[in-house]
Amino acid sequence: MMSDVRKFRVGLLGHGTVGGAFAKLVEERADAIAAGFGVRPEIVGPLRRSQGDFGEILAGSDAIVELIGGTDPAHEYVSTALREGKHVITANKQLISQHGDELLAEAERAGVQLRFEAAVAGVVPVIRVVEESLAGAHVEKVHGIVNGTTNFILTEMAQSGADYAACLARAQQLGFAEADPSEDVNGKDAAAKMAILARLAFHCSVHLDQVEYEGIEDLTPDDIAYAREFGLSLKLLGVAERLSVNGEDGISVRVYPCFLYGGHPLASVIGPYNAVTVESPAITEVTLSGPGAGGPQTASAVLGDLLSVMTGTMSALPEPGQARIIPGKDVSSAFYLYLEVRDEPGVLAQIAQCLGDSGVSVKSAAQKGLGDNARLVMVMHPVVENRFQEALAKIAVLDVLRAPPRAIRVVEEEFV
Amino acid sequence: MMSDVRKFRVGLLGHGTVGGAFAKLVEERADAIAAGFGVRPEIVGPLRRSQGDFGEILAGSDAIVELIGGTDPAHEYVSTALREGKHVITANKQLISQHGDELLAEAERAGVQLRFEAAVAGVVPVIRVVEESLAGAHVEKVHGIVNGTTNFILTEMAQSGADYAACLARAQQLGFAEADPSEDVNGKDAAAKMAILARLAFHCSVHLDQVEYEGIEDLTPDDIAYAREFGLSLKLLGVAERLSVNGEDGISVRVYPCFLYGGHPLASVIGPYNAVTVESPAITEVTLSGPGAGGPQTASAVLGDLLSVMTGTMSALPEPGQARIIPGKDVSSAFYLYLEVRDEPGVLAQIAQCLGDSGVSVKSAAQKGLGDNARLVMVMHPVVENRFQEALAKIAVLDVLRAPPRAIRVVEEEFV
Repeated sequence: MMSDVRKFRVGLLGHGTVGGAFAKLVEERADAIAAGFGVRPEIVGPLRRSQGDFGEILAGSDAIVELIGGTDPAHEYVSTALREGKHVITANKQLISQHGDELLAEAERAGVQLRFEAAVAGVVPVIRVVEESLAGAHVEKVHGIVNGTTNFILTEMAQSGADYAACLARAQQLGFAEADPSEDVNGKDAAAKMAILARLAFHCSVHLDQVEYEGIEDLTPDDIAYAREFGLSLKLLGVAERLSVNGEDGISVRVYPCFLYGGHPLASVIGPYNAVTVESPAITEVTLSGPGAGGPQTASAVLGDLLSVMTGTMSALPEPGQARIIPGKDVSSAFYLYLEVRDEPGVLAQIAQCLGDSGVSVKSAAQKGLGDNARLVMVMHPVVENRFQEALAKIAVLDVLRAPPRAIRVVEEEFV
Repeated sequence: MMSDVRKFRVGLLGHGTVGGAFAKLVEERADAIAAGFGVRPEIVGPLRRSQGDFGEILAGSDAIVELIGGTDPAHEYVSTALREGKHVITANKQLISQHGDELLAEAERAGVQLRFEAAVAGVVPVIRVVEESLAGAHVEKVHGIVNGTTNFILTEMAQSGADYAACLARAQQLGFAEADPSEDVNGKDAAAKMAILARLAFHCSVHLDQVEYEGIEDLTPDDIAYAREFGLSLKLLGVAERLSVNGEDGISVRVYPCFLYGGHPLASVIGPYNAVTVESPAITEVTLSGPGAGGPQTASAVLGDLLSVMTGTMSALPEPGQARIIPGKDVSSAFYLYLEVRDEPGVLAQIAQCLGDSGVSVKSAAQKGLGDNARLVMVMHPVVENRFQEALAKIAVLDVLRAPPRAIRVVEEEFV
């Protein structure tokens, strides 16, 4: 009966790709939601750059959906809304990764919800799963592909053999990369998402500034060719894990390109998809995957959060503790090392000496090409990064190199 | 501060593999949960076959965790607990797939929660994702691998080339199959899970009796060899989908073995793992995967539900509607057909005639072997099953067959 259906007023900030898709989705699904849950969402606004008044929209809303992006003025709006006792749903990873602690505390004080599923992996509901399904679990590690743009570009590079610039252009053409793709391709976008995930998985405060990240801009077709030769995938990986270094426990949160062996669960994730694996001793692992971006997908994630707010589903977030962030240099990794070298006797010996001096152990080495095309491809056993970087610095200044060395991390398991 | 921590008494029914793992997990995690959420779970019981009194446990509990399995006496216990206003968490797929409507209505009346994440896909949180993250979405299809025992056996058959009986024995040896594996291998277990998923995805009542299912007992190394030859995977698939047949909308819920092409997201799910894909126009799809069974895994799923109950996270379930269940015979599928035939002229013509008479169109056909080993392997274009079965019945009585025909469904996309 219609008389039983109450209204729920949703103040919409932003009307770009996601905002527009969200308004459309709400219109499409309002009847079904009203019929199923007895409460009907109604959009108030939207607030656009040139239209609408935030104060008015706030006063007329039961909850705010922030889809402006960036931190200014989104930070001010979200903060104000929470202080005034309104639930907030946002897809804004920069905002949450930089001001999450403050905003979550604000929400707690006001007794309202701050939800941000769409900020991490598009429609892939990793936040809800970590926060609710695994709330009681001891999570050891969360890792995955959390940027669809870079995964699309890497997939294109692997499938076409074209170089980074050409594949980026294709991604832009197809709408999988923005006109200014820098925060996607340099790893910062993924870093923001991993900061958010690490906070939820380990119940501790992690700021974007504490996440070391590398991007994909410097990857070359040679790296891809190497991956293909050995049945490997090259992925931009986000990793958040508990570690113990020198007897001290801490967490490490990082983003870097990485070779995965063919059977790795994340190796088969191609195109603009995201996938996240959560590991915990009790459960082994759970992997979630799906489209990582796109207006309708992100809008759908926002709607999932909105439904939870509307129906009073409240997820209890534990108080964040403080954790020691372990710097990347103290973490162990296996490395692939690609060197363009002079084709002359003694080259391998010089390089092996640099590695040996820093305690880096070589797992395999192969020379490729001759003369001006001579290259050395090596894979190291896992080693504390510090030591590998020390060796790399020594190698970089050797006369026998024709170009700067290139190193890429590898997931060792079953790695050739 | 300890003084702020309240107790939450969890009446535990059952102390088998899952019950034991759950009691252990609660003990391990109680401190962390108390610290994080301000409420500490404490086990009351457990009730074992030979020990404990249900009435006493119920009276002393804030919620009941039912891990006995089967419908009797679990049905009576759960029903009583709900009527007395206690939340219930269960991992019992038979109970929910047969009495879900009644029990959910009971919970609604009493204003308590009935949660059953562990009943469907082990630790894979598909229920929470469908019920909460996708609560506002129009789900078109849910399909996947929801039985770890059969997936382990099929993986073994594919990897070792051994037959069904040998691989079942190996599964039993490793603890991936029970001493009496019949409900796993005949598809009934998967059918119960799909009934539950269909109910949640489509917001309508689906009873186990309405799910048509086939098992894996009759699959042979020849089927596996065929799959290998074409890079296909053979999986026991559960499928729940909205369909429109002859202008009438309905849903179809089924379980059957099926060939998948190599790039299919479910093709790479191997061993005792489960994976479920949820499709909705707005999101394309989301896939969740992880271990499908095991005491600690199932216990972890139960703990996720318990945490939600303890912290007051309430998911609002819409009222179930009635949907027309479309019988399998009216659904279209592509088919692979394996025939052991006499090696003589005119055989293909006779078989093609049977198929043609029923309007079944052949996509490809190949003869294999000679003399007493002659076989015909054919793949059909998608066709309403009714018509294929009609043709199959005619083929089955042909003199030229040396053995009963074998048919397996195929997912057409990119199928060779």
